[in-house]
Amino acid sequence: MKQFTHRLQVATRGKGLYPITREIESWTGDQGIRTGLLTVFIQHTSASLTIQENADPDVVRDLDEFFERLVPENSKWFRHTTEGPDDMPAHIRSALTQTQLTIPLVNAKLALGTWQGIYVFEHRSSPLRRSIVLHLAGE
Amino acid sequence: MKQFTHRLQVATRGKGLYPITREIESWTGDQGIRTGLLTVFIQHTSASLTIQENADPDVVRDLDEFFERLVPENSKWFRHTTEGPDDMPAHIRSALTQTQLTIPLVNAKLALGTWQGIYVFEHRSSPLRRSIVLHLAGE
Amino acid sequence: MKQFTHRLQVATRGKGLYPITREIESWTGDQGIRTGLLTVFIQHTSASLTIQENADPDVVRDLDEFFERLVPENSKWFRHTTEGPDDMPAHIRSALTQTQLTIPLVNAKLALGTWQGIYVFEHRSSPLRRSIVLHLAGE
Repeated sequence: MKQFTHRLQVATRGKGLYPITREIESWTGDQGIRTGLLTVFIQHTSASLTIQENADPDVVRDLDEFFERLVPENSKWFRHTTEGPDDMPAHIRSALTQTQLTIPLVNAKLALGTWQGIYVFEHRSSPLRRSIVLHLAGE
Repeated sequence: MKQFTHRLQVATRGKGLYPITREIESWTGDQGIRTGLLTVFIQHTSASLTIQENADPDVVRDLDEFFERLVPENSKWFRHTTEGPDDMPAHIRSALTQTQLTIPLVNAKLALGTWQGIYVFEHRSSPLRRSIVLHLAGE
Repeated sequence: MKQFTHRLQVATRGKGLYPITREIESWTGDQGIRTGLLTVFIQHTSASLTIQENADPDVVRDLDEFFERLVPENSKWFRHTTEGPDDMPAHIRSALTQTQLTIPLVNAKLALGTWQGIYVFEHRSSPLRRSIVLHLAGE
């Protein structure tokens, strides 16, 4: 089995879901692997990863609003407030979703279902550059 | 290291948790691997995976009811409603749990704890066939 | 590619997050791997794993309090109550976080971001010994 690693930078512009399937499939496809395992790892604790429906854009909007309602800013009991009202909710929203995704590669393609897309889930309000590490093993 | 992949189909009959440990252990055991890594990946965004207690069946019932209460159907603010009242909650419930699980294989056995079982967590109301991809690497 | 496995025991003293980054990095560093994939798997369904900010200790305190509020003990509708008021919430809190984390190894180091730490998230009130399986593949 061979291994490959890669770093992906994603520019976010506030809270919401940012599709990264195309960039990931492009890099993965270039490594010439037929069967293997891809790991996507985000190096942050205030943005996360999720696999969600890629058809109706309302799905990711509703998903973001659900998390906004579940983990509201300015909760009175928050101790960690020095980095802004969106920071502690961002950590909680990250804990409730994923820092890492591992996806099999079968017949030289990621084994995503028809409606599955890979997203960076940004939980902070300001524009940021998010860093993602890809690891592919296979042959 | 060798690699193996397999597709598992699971028929669900409405919301709830469906045990798949036995099918997964059976296929994994057949590959003749002593040490390795198993990845379980579900190809959907309205059903998910979870590892939960396999002893008292009330645990998975309470777990399902918790998600029913946390993400109720017919929330007035949902935009994505065209696929039925259970669809948007299904996407949110999936985002809050797992699309993928990776489990080490040690001494030719999955390293599950005594009370751990692997489940498909169905979030939709109608009967469906769910597709799961298994990837095993090891030797 | 080579493989290594290891068992880590973590003593917890009630609900909260317990850092395990140092123990994991120490064992991983000893295996002489430059590029690879580390999997951390907890063998329980009432304690879980999470990657969180390792700078301000208030972050993990707020995270624990969020889960305490989201999944309160003694909910009247719980069926599973025989193992104590903290047990069913522990299963739900585990389902909402991670049983397993997979982290790439690049240049002989875990690809954690600057502020990322790996934690056992204990959801039960009494002191317990928690068992974690590590699997490292790479070369």
